[in-house]
Amino acid sequence: MSKKLTSRSTDYSKWYNELVSKANLAEASDVRGCMVIKPYGFAIWEKMKARLDEMFKETGHQNAYFPLFVPKKLFESEEKNAEGFAKECAVVTHYRLKNDPRNKGKLIIDPEAKLEEELVVRPTSEAIIWSTYKKWIQSYRDLPILINQWANVVRWEMRTRLFLRTSEFLWQEGHTAHATKEEAIKETIIINDIYEKFSEEFLAIPVIKGTKSESERFAGAEETHCIEALMQDGKALQMGTSHFLGQNFAKAFDVKFADKKGKLEHVWASSWGVSTRLMGALIMTHSDDKGLVLPPNLAPIQVVIIPIYKNENELNIITEVVNKIKDSLEIMGISVKYDNNDNLKPGYKFNEYELKGVPIRLSIGPRDIEKKQIELVRRDDLTKSNISIEKLNKYIPKVLIEIQKKLYNKAKAFRNQNISKVDDFKEFKKILSSKGGFVLAHWDGTKETEEIIKKETKATIRCIPYHDEDKGKCIISGKPSLKRVLFAKSY
Amino acid sequence: MSKKLTSRSTDYSKWYNELVSKANLAEASDVRGCMVIKPYGFAIWEKMKARLDEMFKETGHQNAYFPLFVPKKLFESEEKNAEGFAKECAVVTHYRLKNDPRNKGKLIIDPEAKLEEELVVRPTSEAIIWSTYKKWIQSYRDLPILINQWANVVRWEMRTRLFLRTSEFLWQEGHTAHATKEEAIKETIIINDIYEKFSEEFLAIPVIKGTKSESERFAGAEETHCIEALMQDGKALQMGTSHFLGQNFAKAFDVKFADKKGKLEHVWASSWGVSTRLMGALIMTHSDDKGLVLPPNLAPIQVVIIPIYKNENELNIITEVVNKIKDSLEIMGISVKYDNNDNLKPGYKFNEYELKGVPIRLSIGPRDIEKKQIELVRRDDLTKSNISIEKLNKYIPKVLIEIQKKLYNKAKAFRNQNISKVDDFKEFKKILSSKGGFVLAHWDGTKETEEIIKKETKATIRCIPYHDEDKGKCIISGKPSLKRVLFAKSY
Repeated sequence: MSKKLTSRSTDYSKWYNELVSKANLAEASDVRGCMVIKPYGFAIWEKMKARLDEMFKETGHQNAYFPLFVPKKLFESEEKNAEGFAKECAVVTHYRLKNDPRNKGKLIIDPEAKLEEELVVRPTSEAIIWSTYKKWIQSYRDLPILINQWANVVRWEMRTRLFLRTSEFLWQEGHTAHATKEEAIKETIIINDIYEKFSEEFLAIPVIKGTKSESERFAGAEETHCIEALMQDGKALQMGTSHFLGQNFAKAFDVKFADKKGKLEHVWASSWGVSTRLMGALIMTHSDDKGLVLPPNLAPIQVVIIPIYKNENELNIITEVVNKIKDSLEIMGISVKYDNNDNLKPGYKFNEYELKGVPIRLSIGPRDIEKKQIELVRRDDLTKSNISIEKLNKYIPKVLIEIQKKLYNKAKAFRNQNISKVDDFKEFKKILSSKGGFVLAHWDGTKETEEIIKKETKATIRCIPYHDEDKGKCIISGKPSLKRVLFAKSY
Repeated sequence: MSKKLTSRSTDYSKWYNELVSKANLAEASDVRGCMVIKPYGFAIWEKMKARLDEMFKETGHQNAYFPLFVPKKLFESEEKNAEGFAKECAVVTHYRLKNDPRNKGKLIIDPEAKLEEELVVRPTSEAIIWSTYKKWIQSYRDLPILINQWANVVRWEMRTRLFLRTSEFLWQEGHTAHATKEEAIKETIIINDIYEKFSEEFLAIPVIKGTKSESERFAGAEETHCIEALMQDGKALQMGTSHFLGQNFAKAFDVKFADKKGKLEHVWASSWGVSTRLMGALIMTHSDDKGLVLPPNLAPIQVVIIPIYKNENELNIITEVVNKIKDSLEIMGISVKYDNNDNLKPGYKFNEYELKGVPIRLSIGPRDIEKKQIELVRRDDLTKSNISIEKLNKYIPKVLIEIQKKLYNKAKAFRNQNISKVDDFKEFKKILSSKGGFVLAHWDGTKETEEIIKKETKATIRCIPYHDEDKGKCIISGKPSLKRVLFAKSY
């Protein structure tokens, strides 16, 4: 398989697919729309999980696990939510296969093992969780409940793309229960802030925070907060959502609590999630035509060391030096791989680790050892330098921090260059069909206007940013608007 | 809800169910046979996961993720495996629900969204994984593949019990591919050894290692290695299994590799797993009539501190002292909870943490502060002592190690007392119907004999222990036997 990628400018979509495949991140499976996450891709996802899990726990959340299946009757309970997900549900109808009497070695569904009530494979877990919370909540003393779950969910998607849209995906879903509206809203915002911090500091992806318009809201939510990022092709990607659910699920499942005075009230709720989609965002924000570029914070391998040698004797001398370097870096918590595979040439390895986005590549040969130096190549800007081995321990941690920062700054500069303030629809259309990106424009707040814009440009309201006071007139209806909202075509 | 448990001697099974419920470990859900793992139970499972994951990675394994669904055609490929699991499969037949025209607000299956090919919810992942490995393996250079997956699986069980047997459960499943038979067998044994070490050192549960008889083997395996433990009621519990799969799956999925000489050969395989069943084993090995008893290694809370006070002033003085103690213990990596909840009385809290199995309970009042001491109660033996606060930092880590050891030794002594060597079937039946436990007896190696014993006593061969050379005669047929095998009634 050629390691060379189609360039982004030639075909961005093809570049993405090739990168996911060639960097060994994921691949399509024999199950329609479901992916296999390969070890290297999964190692990156594990880093994301570990950091997020830590952030959730630091803010008082606990993990738990709820069933994969939702009985149809429960699934129906919250009408809007059910309506929103009914069209893309995997449904279990039978619990047994039997031998096909007409076809030896083949299995068929056993018609006698038909379920009385169908089970929906969870597309999201509000229904099953709120039917459980009903048993847990009687008094204000039982509140708040701050629970998160790491799980797989299934949404039957017609057009799928690895990481970005798959029928099965992995995610975390938080489900909290509160005694007051204010507390539930506060939780929703705390989580959106965690998502922002995680995205910016850990993934090095700048985001814009805001709320969704009614038509883009989660089915069953009163308000959806989100973080939105911009990919290199000028399309937006929703990175995470945090929903204020009001009392909708509490009412649907009749979950009430007695307050301090003994009065019964419905419980207030939030739910929130991020998924393996973040892998897609990560890839499309930082990577280049040579392959993946990983922020050091989530690189499974932060430093790779490649020996340059002609014979075993040279390799032995190099290995001795490298082992010392490796040990001293590992003690500082840096993950290092020494690739002394004798079957592959250095040039092949250089390409391989560029493709895999390893932040720092060191290479060392006999002449370097003589000079007590090592060659260092940064993956972010591909600059090359010779570093004294003695100074490596101080230099490497510094460079890792620098790369992390630089990737963020680069992505932010790109994002900012691609936000356009627009005051009429002609200009709006022109920008969207040429450079793309985010467009800040005035909107009259109606579904009808949103629909017109979507139909004519394929752009949707990505979010209504929190802080953007700037009165004006709607680009479609000319009606007054209090603030600009953020439009874009999106993944 | 009363916190008092039914005693083990009154009704062991009831005791177990009450304990799982009252210690907030898990509960039944609205989905037949599926459980909700509650935060406290899940926190223990997370500790198990973390340690096992570390052990797998230390031995060169990587995590990945494969689809939840297995298309029926793939599922059928390995005949024995398919036969073994076909009877307990959840089957997805449709991918959409629609509004019921005759019943507003209700949903029905959309008959137009029937899948061309049914999807089985994975009961185990050999089929989907080997259909993937076919794409990954061409040459000996692609081997070995050492992959593990943390996932949920579904086996439609008719009689379920929390943790021990549920329709959906969480587990890890390793799936490895090798160039030689020897290497695959070695891997199978390495993993069984990891399971043994994990069980004995981390869960403090002594186990007996061995192989399964043919009729107890995993469907599709050539040989199944396992670890077996003994519960307090004299029944055995299978803790983990590691299967040598021969070339069965490679043949079923036509997975071949070119060796160094270019000759094509089928790949050799192993698979292995442990599940949330381990939670059941943990509970039934160490706990007592007062509740859960947790080995310190996996206790989410290792030390709980309870203030004894009459007024706020006293509480403030105590809190100041406790905060210092808490900080200094936490620095050493000990997890400490200070329960200053003003709504609950100390006696209630004492019961609560006994029920939850917290290894060390400290309580402190104004008089203790005067004497510069604190009361310490160990959960394992419920002994009470007064410890000088000054010495706490040295004392607590020592006691935690001691509790871990003592629990293991206690369980091992119990297990050893309940292994009976038996030479005739009358005695065999007598022991199994009275004290129960493990019975070591001679067996002629035939399925027929195994079946007779199972029918008459409900005991099965738990394993053929590795090291137990002791020639004799089969207790049923009188035919010669080379070693004793381990019988027991089991979970």
